[in-house]
Amino acid sequence: MTPETPIRWTRKDLLGIAELSPAEIELILDTAESFSEIGERAIKKVPTLRGKTVLNLFFEASTRTRSSFEIAEKRLSADNINFSTSGSALEKGETLVDTALNLQAMAPDLVVIRHAHAGVPHMLARRIKAGVINAGDGAHEHPTQALLDAFTIRRHKGKLAGLKVAILGDIEHSRVVRSNIHLLNKMGAQVTIGGPRTLMPVEMESMGVEVAYSLEDAIRDADVIMMLRVQLERQGRMAFPSVKEYFQLFGLTTARLAAARDDVIIMHPGPMNRGTEIASEVADGPYSVILEQVTHGVSVRMAVLYLLSGVHEETV
Amino acid sequence: MTPETPIRWTRKDLLGIAELSPAEIELILDTAESFSEIGERAIKKVPTLRGKTVLNLFFEASTRTRSSFEIAEKRLSADNINFSTSGSALEKGETLVDTALNLQAMAPDLVVIRHAHAGVPHMLARRIKAGVINAGDGAHEHPTQALLDAFTIRRHKGKLAGLKVAILGDIEHSRVVRSNIHLLNKMGAQVTIGGPRTLMPVEMESMGVEVAYSLEDAIRDADVIMMLRVQLERQGRMAFPSVKEYFQLFGLTTARLAAARDDVIIMHPGPMNRGTEIASEVADGPYSVILEQVTHGVSVRMAVLYLLSGVHEETV
Amino acid sequence: MTPETPIRWTRKDLLGIAELSPAEIELILDTAESFSEIGERAIKKVPTLRGKTVLNLFFEASTRTRSSFEIAEKRLSADNINFSTSGSALEKGETLVDTALNLQAMAPDLVVIRHAHAGVPHMLARRIKAGVINAGDGAHEHPTQALLDAFTIRRHKGKLAGLKVAILGDIEHSRVVRSNIHLLNKMGAQVTIGGPRTLMPVEMESMGVEVAYSLEDAIRDADVIMMLRVQLERQGRMAFPSVKEYFQLFGLTTARLAAARDDVIIMHPGPMNRGTEIASEVADGPYSVILEQVTHGVSVRMAVLYLLSGVHEETV
Repeated sequence: MTPETPIRWTRKDLLGIAELSPAEIELILDTAESFSEIGERAIKKVPTLRGKTVLNLFFEASTRTRSSFEIAEKRLSADNINFSTSGSALEKGETLVDTALNLQAMAPDLVVIRHAHAGVPHMLARRIKAGVINAGDGAHEHPTQALLDAFTIRRHKGKLAGLKVAILGDIEHSRVVRSNIHLLNKMGAQVTIGGPRTLMPVEMESMGVEVAYSLEDAIRDADVIMMLRVQLERQGRMAFPSVKEYFQLFGLTTARLAAARDDVIIMHPGPMNRGTEIASEVADGPYSVILEQVTHGVSVRMAVLYLLSGVHEETV
Repeated sequence: MTPETPIRWTRKDLLGIAELSPAEIELILDTAESFSEIGERAIKKVPTLRGKTVLNLFFEASTRTRSSFEIAEKRLSADNINFSTSGSALEKGETLVDTALNLQAMAPDLVVIRHAHAGVPHMLARRIKAGVINAGDGAHEHPTQALLDAFTIRRHKGKLAGLKVAILGDIEHSRVVRSNIHLLNKMGAQVTIGGPRTLMPVEMESMGVEVAYSLEDAIRDADVIMMLRVQLERQGRMAFPSVKEYFQLFGLTTARLAAARDDVIIMHPGPMNRGTEIASEVADGPYSVILEQVTHGVSVRMAVLYLLSGVHEETV
Repeated sequence: MTPETPIRWTRKDLLGIAELSPAEIELILDTAESFSEIGERAIKKVPTLRGKTVLNLFFEASTRTRSSFEIAEKRLSADNINFSTSGSALEKGETLVDTALNLQAMAPDLVVIRHAHAGVPHMLARRIKAGVINAGDGAHEHPTQALLDAFTIRRHKGKLAGLKVAILGDIEHSRVVRSNIHLLNKMGAQVTIGGPRTLMPVEMESMGVEVAYSLEDAIRDADVIMMLRVQLERQGRMAFPSVKEYFQLFGLTTARLAAARDDVIIMHPGPMNRGTEIASEVADGPYSVILEQVTHGVSVRMAVLYLLSGVHEETV
């Protein structure tokens, strides 16, 4: 990316990190930087998206991501309309495509969607004119999470390239890890993933990351440690004998942090299982930037909503 | 109706089509016509109902009708507050009248209500000062659906009078059919309803329509075909042997369309059961105006909200 | 309280009546008085909280309190974001503190919370910067209910001091009664509580109220009668043989009203169980101010939102 020739955002949708160029990622992060200042004002609101309508379709439970998007939308003065699974036409046997086409016929400007099945946002994006933002599809991608993680790292380290990032825990069930690997690889960071063998899918080795099967190996000399939530609710069967045993092997404690760099930062996408994948002393300790991630999430989502709505407006 | 003496809207509520005059129906459709232009702007918002509060009370599952009303309300700049059954005072044993009186005491301007029991919106309208819009009461009426259907027909045919309209399918469980028969009769269209005998209530013959028991008889020379959703979720027992058998007898296919007029339009209130009452080739084919119905639904609901709020305002 | 030196609101939160001074209570009631005029306008909206964000966290079912807060927020032009239990991060095993910290990281200005456990709003208030309003915590406090009750009494009686107030019914399961006793005691009213012995906790005698075990004893010479809802949904076991028996002993009827003062007013926090704790003839009769309570609830909540947001703004 040459800073002399600033790029413009040309995509209708944000479906995953996999398809973004490093320049597009930097454009989102830089735009988020300019929006983050609004969050520090007494009146955290700008008229940027006044009169635009955003549909929030959450077909899976979510507190943090949904509220982050809603707050981002309100700060931009967009109108938003919220739907969850329960009470929806889908329960009456309608296909998702028909639901999509029907919502499209009401001419929203943007659709934010979370769904338990990978690929649903992509299918939607092909069928409707509105810009589609993937807010998590199965264990596939969760691009705004990876972007807010990158934003948080950049704030602390000033860069992404050359950093050693360890991602630890329940790799198999995490959409966060896939989006983060794509992003960190593209931006020149070096990623090591670690976790129990029973939660480590074989295809990971082909994603251009190092794989470690002990916490100590994974975090050695790490600039950044990202802990993943043990997705207790996604596991058909337990992949490890007990929560206690998981914590003994892969729980991040202060003692174990010694292997990492002195200025390491600790991240977690939430919701945390304290005492399972992370000790409270670490979650609340001096290296933790976990709550900053949440704050930056609003700025990053404002940036994405803004960039996508801009494209949409121009093609009208 | 004489165009020289334009009528004014004087009703507090919109409870059903049965009580409307042809002039009132035309007033709503003409008003919707003027609102439909807003839906084509980049900024789909006018300040008409700024500062007005609309309560959306959906005591039955709904995606399309609820989102259509919500979008209409936001486009008019109204404030809206949404309630569904779950978590409501009704679950604590309060009577619907008490819920109504309590909501009324908070002085909303308009109440949109969907309820599984016929007559609930009417009871509400008698008790409260706010204008009440029936968004579907049991198998009784769904007036805004009939109005958006009429709007869509008028757009394509330029008129309603003299048209042959076939309404097909699960007549017994449909509130849409009752509202549509009232409207089409009042406006001078000729209605034929068709469907299996097990789904055809005897009182239909007295509603001033022709009744056919085969799809072919019903759609012969039709200008408009309205397919009804087979309300699988409303039937205590199956009224036909199987979905496959229903489709063989009453499913609308391209081959069967030959009996209708060459410029026939195909409508469906949604959500569709593809392969049950309608083939995908017809739903997505050149005669289908199904998605236009959805688009026009927003304009019609804006018109109704606008007309009712005007009356309310004058009586303050 | 000396009227010559008007006090200023200095609290970050409104958690209970127990900690308020009489001057603070009067400040809220006087502020509500000035807001109540807005509810009588055709356009019930002022720009006071424009750009402020209010999170409504209802972890227990609520129609009336939630809608009252929502309407109050919209009338003040605040942006609001609504969460209920279902679909929340809490279901994924996150602690309430973490949910709180995460929401805080999104920088809302105010949080309205209802929760089944006493003390949850207090814990939240200690952890987050946003102002917290207790909208009901278990059987502990429900301060805005007591404030709207006091507002309603003041409107009718011109004062609170010296009045005889009878509170009747299911004392044990009521958060309303605790907040009301605190408030009425502080403001110089004389409180008698009455109800079945099985629903009368022993600690009540120490709260500075008279206790009566018959309806007649409780309401003798009362200026105000507050009926409590029999919380059928909160009782593990029935504390009385049957609804019919409860009504015979503690149901308020017109005949029984004779013992009270001629200008008595009848209140109920809702939702009412007609025929259990109150006869319809009383609920709908000339002494009832039950629906006025609901109307005043919006004004009182506007006042609380306004006062808390003012403090918050100054400390930014």
